[in-house]
Parts: sequence; structure tokens; C-alpha cells
Amino acid sequence: MATRLKVPGLAGEVAAEFAGTMILILFGVGVVAQVAAAGIGDHDSIAWAWGLGVTLGVYVAARVSGAHLNPAVTIALAVFKGFSWRKVAPYILAQTVGAFIAALLVRWNYTEVLHAADPGLTIKTQGVFSTLPGNGTLPVSEWGAFRDQIIGTAILLFVILALTDMANTAPAANLGPVVIGLLVVAIGMAWGTNAGYAINPARDFGPRLASFLTGYGGAFRDQYGNLYFWVPIVAPIIGGVIGAGLYQTLIGRFLPSASPQEPGEIPTRTDEDVEVRRG
Amino acid sequence: MATRLKVPGLAGEVAAEFAGTMILILFGVGVVAQVAAAGIGDHDSIAWAWGLGVTLGVYVAARVSGAHLNPAVTIALAVFKGFSWRKVAPYILAQTVGAFIAALLVRWNYTEVLHAADPGLTIKTQGVFSTLPGNGTLPVSEWGAFRDQIIGTAILLFVILALTDMANTAPAANLGPVVIGLLVVAIGMAWGTNAGYAINPARDFGPRLASFLTGYGGAFRDQYGNLYFWVPIVAPIIGGVIGAGLYQTLIGRFLPSASPQEPGEIPTRTDEDVEVRRG
Amino acid sequence: MATRLKVPGLAGEVAAEFAGTMILILFGVGVVAQVAAAGIGDHDSIAWAWGLGVTLGVYVAARVSGAHLNPAVTIALAVFKGFSWRKVAPYILAQTVGAFIAALLVRWNYTEVLHAADPGLTIKTQGVFSTLPGNGTLPVSEWGAFRDQIIGTAILLFVILALTDMANTAPAANLGPVVIGLLVVAIGMAWGTNAGYAINPARDFGPRLASFLTGYGGAFRDQYGNLYFWVPIVAPIIGGVIGAGLYQTLIGRFLPSASPQEPGEIPTRTDEDVEVRRG
Amino acid sequence: MATRLKVPGLAGEVAAEFAGTMILILFGVGVVAQVAAAGIGDHDSIAWAWGLGVTLGVYVAARVSGAHLNPAVTIALAVFKGFSWRKVAPYILAQTVGAFIAALLVRWNYTEVLHAADPGLTIKTQGVFSTLPGNGTLPVSEWGAFRDQIIGTAILLFVILALTDMANTAPAANLGPVVIGLLVVAIGMAWGTNAGYAINPARDFGPRLASFLTGYGGAFRDQYGNLYFWVPIVAPIIGGVIGAGLYQTLIGRFLPSASPQEPGEIPTRTDEDVEVRRG
Repeated sequence: MATRLKVPGLAGEVAAEFAGTMILILFGVGVVAQVAAAGIGDHDSIAWAWGLGVTLGVYVAARVSGAHLNPAVTIALAVFKGFSWRKVAPYILAQTVGAFIAALLVRWNYTEVLHAADPGLTIKTQGVFSTLPGNGTLPVSEWGAFRDQIIGTAILLFVILALTDMANTAPAANLGPVVIGLLVVAIGMAWGTNAGYAINPARDFGPRLASFLTGYGGAFRDQYGNLYFWVPIVAPIIGGVIGAGLYQTLIGRFLPSASPQEPGEIPTRTDEDVEVRRG
Repeated sequence: MATRLKVPGLAGEVAAEFAGTMILILFGVGVVAQVAAAGIGDHDSIAWAWGLGVTLGVYVAARVSGAHLNPAVTIALAVFKGFSWRKVAPYILAQTVGAFIAALLVRWNYTEVLHAADPGLTIKTQGVFSTLPGNGTLPVSEWGAFRDQIIGTAILLFVILALTDMANTAPAANLGPVVIGLLVVAIGMAWGTNAGYAINPARDFGPRLASFLTGYGGAFRDQYGNLYFWVPIVAPIIGGVIGAGLYQTLIGRFLPSASPQEPGEIPTRTDEDVEVRRG
Repeated sequence: MATRLKVPGLAGEVAAEFAGTMILILFGVGVVAQVAAAGIGDHDSIAWAWGLGVTLGVYVAARVSGAHLNPAVTIALAVFKGFSWRKVAPYILAQTVGAFIAALLVRWNYTEVLHAADPGLTIKTQGVFSTLPGNGTLPVSEWGAFRDQIIGTAILLFVILALTDMANTAPAANLGPVVIGLLVVAIGMAWGTNAGYAINPARDFGPRLASFLTGYGGAFRDQYGNLYFWVPIVAPIIGGVIGAGLYQTLIGRFLPSASPQEPGEIPTRTDEDVEVRRG
Repeated sequence: MATRLKVPGLAGEVAAEFAGTMILILFGVGVVAQVAAAGIGDHDSIAWAWGLGVTLGVYVAARVSGAHLNPAVTIALAVFKGFSWRKVAPYILAQTVGAFIAALLVRWNYTEVLHAADPGLTIKTQGVFSTLPGNGTLPVSEWGAFRDQIIGTAILLFVILALTDMANTAPAANLGPVVIGLLVVAIGMAWGTNAGYAINPARDFGPRLASFLTGYGGAFRDQYGNLYFWVPIVAPIIGGVIGAGLYQTLIGRFLPSASPQEPGEIPTRTDEDVEVRRG
């Protein structure tokens, strides 16, 4: 590295996690409002804009905080990658507040179309802000949503660890955030049926609280009348740890240790690394 | 840098802003004509082609003028990044003329399908050229459009500053324009309901004028009969300055100064920078 | 360059143009067959797969022949970039034969669905192979198609010259072919109404001939009964030269000459080049 | 290369092929379940998520095993690129087991929507797991599917060899896996009609077996009642060898040999290589 970074300190890290998650949710909750309340676009629009929101949020926060933007990521990195446990609570708080503020902005901006589509602010547009089993309409139980969130978040962390592992073939040229966004696009297209691919407790709880405080009285319950808000909090945390552990077991232990890399030393990702299919 | 650039001078910069914005609008107004008048594609086509138009316009102009292509960008960079105030008016003029010429070309090329879809050249196809509250059909007021344009352009500038900040993790390998285009794709998918995501005064006014001069007598008014053309001029300028200021406050001040970088010195974006999720 | 390339010679260049155009058309004509005859996908699928076909065809041929894959590109490069006029005819022939063979493969593979959708092999599925005014159904005249092909191919060459100009901000890391493909995606979404965005004489004539020889008796005429095959040959050649000339006029002459670059010298595209928005 | 890799050995390679193929199929079979059983998305969602699944699976496995993830790739590399024949059987077994486990996870997670959409677990949702002639509904014979799989897999290998050939213009910055994924997106959009673009024996047989063992009694037969499972095994292997051979004939022999490249030596892909259209 040609110049040393100013150490941003916890204040900067908290600000970056707040800002990055806010950007993510401005796109994520925004697109669902546009599709569900205004009728512009379809489920693929949701998958693309969520994924691109992740890409853009990561670019915002990456240098200062590492761009976790997701408590399931923060906790998995603390368990497996030495991320300081002392920072876990501030990171998660910043992520949740960023998601909350972003959802309030969407709620305010889309007031007219939300009220036109759903005057009672019912479960019909609750999905704009937070997730439901089977997206509120498909015959999926809470258990179906719970196991889905474990698997989906396990996939998320398994692949994130691959995409950011300097001993593996991580994208170079600062393009990792693009591929991480494509990962979330693919999760939305393939793992969005049972539980709306929350895969991020801050993404779900922050907007859920914002909707509750602005007229959505049933925000914490699902279409069966049961308290549901804890499912997209607990299951992603479990799934994230499982996925990160599986990556270490199936891939990580067969790679060279990254520990001898010092700041300023070019890591093992050289131009040769693109030979992804060795003969 | 191995070779020094010829200093292009204001003539070159004006030509590049003209050409880059022209390319942007050839795609942006072109795709809305194709969708709205010819019935080929849907709103996602619009989001993709607008975003890709930005990418391609930026590639055209980046080296010579910096590829603002948008008065809201030019003004925000003058306020926060030292862009010369003396160049602001010529840049904005060039952007607006480029958008105007491009819209005339689309208007000419698509004459037959525009007249077939809307013989009276009414508000029905006005949206091909310029924006309307709620895209002309949804129950959104001028105030709903105004606040939307502030928020949407604030998001645009906030993320553009992140994506081009050499002290942050900006995309390398000259791929920044691709990610900036993806940003506009995502804005189209998530923030296109209230005001057609103008987020660019030149993009809106140039084609609006072109349509007015070629038969669209109501081009400056909205579906409520009110003068509307000023909303997508004023609100994006306000929003752009707010977004750029927020980036400086939440992210920029926690990053090292980029000032010691001299031409020929490799900046802080090295291969290490791809480690976007530090443990 | 660490190692010198074996000079491939004209035989290699012709083989590469043949192979690259064949790959392009295997995707391009293939996707229209899938959409129009089998009913899988829609116009956006066509735009994406054509664009990705360009990307992949360019990757196949780039090193050996420069990957023109399009007579309009070959001629414009001969006029403005010193490409040898002696090679123009062999390049165009190889491109056309590659497109012809690829179309025969699609025709053979999709025999069953083509005959099921259009037993008479009429104009209804002629558009799988070659273009028509207004895609055969919209009220667009031959003149509407002719001017559209001039503009569309001018855009193509204008932006290709920007994307491959080492004095501008061309994509590095061998990712230029991806952005060139995105250019074709955007043209398909925004400039595909009047004439099916042929923008490539080989792309249109090769498959047209293949369809004529395999049962499509009306392949050379349009829905008005007029000979049409010459429009997507002549207009793209004119448009390509216009677009390349405009790039030189509006952008190229404000950039430093690329001539002092010798093999082995790193060109001006360094990491700094990503600062696409200079303040 | 700054640091030498730990040689992972066959155990690591088998684990990586297992994990990479598992990730691929978690997305690939997952998205078809979401579209076909839950009705969320359309054929383009399938094309995108399959392609992105390939990208992500390759990133997972690339460093350790080379990320074949497909017996047709493994065999073609053994025939033409010196991949050790001794490793062919373990690679193929690992790929098939990875696909099998992933399909079981999808089968388990989507139990409720699969039973709601198709209580008898019939051919109606068989296509979630394995391919059928004409996707089970179009008038395509087994021979139509067989020739389609030869051509489609020939295209796959032809282009993969181009995209990973260091003597050609392979994508750098570790972004090859993204372009390989786009290749599969394009195959899905253009070559998915006759046989559901299996183009990978492990992708088809592993999930087919998983569906058979979990209630799909007709998994090995097609809609005509004939045994079909062997077609997407045999035809892709034939097609892969043909495609790889054609690449060597049309392109590879005109490129310089890559043999003098030693670990640590920068190969011929330098920044100059982006000049994809030489004048």
C-alpha cells in the first residue's frame, strides 16, 4: 500500500456501517415498495435491486469498516476470522439503525402509493418492509421459513468467505463488491420463496420497526397471527456460522495460510490467478 | 502515468460533455420510446438501458471532461470537490445541448411508432422524453415528486462519491463506469415511482424542449395542468449537494486525504483493496 | 508483453473471424429461435443473449484477429484506424461464412419447434434469422429502417472506438469485451424497434441466406413484398463510418496520440485512470 | 506468485469439486423450484441464477481444484489439456455427489411448495431437478435433445477454453468466473429449448437421483415413457470433446504456446491485451 490509512477508529466504523446499510436498504426496501405498491417491475427487479444495493452499500463502507452491513456476517467473522467481539454490538446497532432510517425514508417518500395500494396498512404491503413465511401468500410454515433462513444464510457466508479469501481466487481490482452483489441477486432468485431471503437480521428488524411505528400495527406477526419477527433474526445468525464453518472445512483448510501477508506485500492473487481451470 | 495527457482545454471538455450526454440520452430516451411507443420491453428494460447508457456515456467522456453528464453532479463537485466554478455554466450548457440533440434524433427516428401510438402527441407519450409526477398515472403530487428527486439525487451523489473516491475502495481497471451504470439501474428499479428518476436536470430539460419543439405542446406541464418542468431541475440540484455533503460527513472525513497523490504515483487502491470484508 | 506472439497470418485471422462470428450468431439467432419459435423468454432475453454473444465472440477472436466480427467495424477501422484494406474482403467473407454456418446449426437444431410454430416457414419466423422493418409487425417503412440502421450503427462504432481507445479510459484487465457486449444489450433495448438492430451486415446476410436455402422462400423480401436484404447491409456500413468519424471529431482529437506506444510499454491506462469523475 | 501454494492433494481437490458443484446446484435447482413450484420469476430468472451459480461455484473451487464442476469439462481437459486421467473418476464422483446433496437440500427446503404445486410428484415438477426433451412440453424428440446437448456443450467448452487460455485474451483480475457465468446465462437463453441445457452430466444425474429417492418415481423417464437419463450424460461428454477440439483447431493453434510460462512469471496477458480491436 503506497500510503498508510488513517485509522478511522470505532466512530468511523460505526458511521460506515450505518451509511452502508442505509444505502443497501434505500434500494432494497425501495424496490419492494416500487413493485408491490406502485406495480412497477416484478420479482426479478427485486432480486436485481437488492443485489445491486448490496454492491453499492459495500463500496460505501468497505474501506472504513469492512462493510459487513449484516449482523450475521459480523458474528460469523467474529467466530471464524478474528473480528473483535468488542465491536460486534456497536456494528450490529449501527447496521440496524441504518436500516431503520432508510426504511423511514422509503415509508415517507412512498406514502401516497402505499396508501393507494393498501389504505389500511395491512399485511398486504407489510412485505415492503419485512419478510413473511412464503412471502405472505404461499403455504409455508414458520418452520419452513426457519430452515430456509438457515440454509440461505449459510450459502451467503460460505460464498462471501470464498469471495474475500485472499488465498483463494477472490476478484481483484476492487471488484469484489460487484460479485458479492451478484451473490445476493442469485439468492433472491433461487432462495426467496420460503422467507423472502431476509438473510440479514438488521435488514429485517430495522424496517419492521420503522413500519410498526408508522402505522403497520401487525408488523411483528405473520399471516397466521403468530409472532414471527424473531425468525429472520435467529435463523440467519445460526446459518451464517454454519456456512462460514463449512467453508473453512471444505475449502479453507486446503489453502495456504494468509497470515504471512503484511501490509504492502502483494498477496497471492496475481494475474496467474485467473487461470481458473487448470488442465 | 506513462505519458502525459495533452491538456484538452475547455473546448475539448465541452465537446466531451456534449458527446457523453448525447450517448446517454440516445439510450435513455430511446429505450422509453421503444417500450412506451413500440411496446417492446418493460420497465426493467428502461432501468437497464438507462443505466448502461450512463456507463457508455461515461466511457466516452471520462478522460477528457471527467464525464459529469449531469448538472447536479457538476454543481455538487464544484461545492465539495473543488471543480472550477468558472466551468460550471459551460458544462451544464453542453450537457443540456447534448441531451437536446439526442432527443431530436430519437424523436425523428421513432416518428412512425410515436404517431401510431399517440397521434395527438399528448401526455400519453410525453414520458418518452421528460418526467411526470407518478409517471403520469400514479397518484403522486408535485410535492411527492419534489421530495423524491431530492432523495434520489442525494443517493446518486452519495454513491458516486464513494465509487470515485481513491481513498475509498473505488473500482479499478477502468471499471468504475460499469458500477456507476449499475447504480443508475438500481435507482431506476427502486426510486422510479414518484418522478421517473430524472435525477439529472439536463436529462430532463433537453428532451423536454426537444419534444415541445416537435409537436408536444403540453411538454412543460404535468397531468394536473401545472407547470412542472422546474421540479426535475431544482430538486436534483438540491439533492445532489445534500448527498455529496452526507458522504463527506459519514465516510469522507474518516478516510486519508488523497492530496499527496501526484501524477505517476500509484494511489492507495492496490490489490489489497479487494479485501472488502476485513475480519 | 512478456512473450512475443506468433504472428498468426491471414489464415489465422480468417479462422478467428469465422469462429468469433459463429459463436456470436449461435447465441444471437439461437435466442430469437428460442423466444419466437419455442416461446421461452421475451425481447429482453434477446437483448441480453445477443449482447453476451458479442462478448463471448470477441473473447474467442480478440487475440488472433482483433475480433471485428462485423463488416461495418472492419470498414470503419480501415477508414479511420489504418486497418489494412487488403484484409477487408477476407475478413468480411469469413464473418459472413461464420454467421451462415451458425445459422444453419440453429436451423437444424430447432427444426421441430420452428415447424411447429410456423409450418409454412413464412415471414412469421423469418425474424429468427434476419431483420425486417418494424420487426415485421410495426408500421415502419424501409426508409424508417434505413435511417435507424445508420443511427444505430453510428452509435455502435462511436462507443466501440471509445471503449478500445487506449488514450481514453478503456476498460482494462481484458474486460473490454464485457462492456462491448453491454453496449449491444443497450442497443437492443433502445434501438431495436425500426429494424431489429441488425447493425452488422454479416449478422444479417449470413443467416438470411441460410434460411433461404432451408425453406424460407421469402427471405430476401419484407412484409411489404419489397426486396429488403440490402438495407441491413448498406445502412450499417454508412452508419459505422459516420459514427467512427464523429468519435474522432468530438473526442479523439482531444486525446493524446497513442502512436508512441511500443509493444512492451505500458500504455496510459494505469490505475489512475479509474478516477472517471475528476473534480 | 508471492507465496507458494500448499499442494492441496486429491483430498482437497475432491472436497473443492464437491463444494463448488454443491453451490452451483443450490442455485440452479433452487431457482427452478422457485419458478416452477412457487411461481416466482420466469425463464430468464432461471438463466440468470444458473449462470450466477456457475460463477459462484467456480469462485469457491477455483484455487484448490480448478473448478471443473462438470464431467464434460473434466473429460475434455483430460483429452486436450493434459489433465491427469487418474483424477477423472474422483473428480466426476465428487461433482455428482455435490449435485446430489444440493438437490436433496432444495428438495427438503421446498417440500411444501412442491407438494402444493404437484401433489403426486409427477413429471409436472420433475423439471425442477432434471432435464426433459423440450422441457417436457414442447414437441422435441430424444434425438432433438441429443443433438442439442452435443451442440450446446460444444459451445460451452469452445468458449471456456477461450476464456481460460492465457495465450488468448482471458479476463484478468480474477474475473474469469464472472464471464464463464455469463456464458451459461447466454446458453440458457439461446440453447435451452430442446433439452433444458443440461450440458453437465453431474448437474443432471445427481439431482435426478435425489428426486427419484424422494418420491419422483418417474425420474429416469421422459414424457414419452422412454428411459432418458442417459442423454444428458452421453451427449454432453461427446459435445465437450468436439468443442474443445474445434477451439484448438480454429483458434488455439494460431496462438503462441503457453508452455514456457513458469510459476511466478507474468504471462502474456498484460494491460495491452485489452486492445481487443486492433486496427
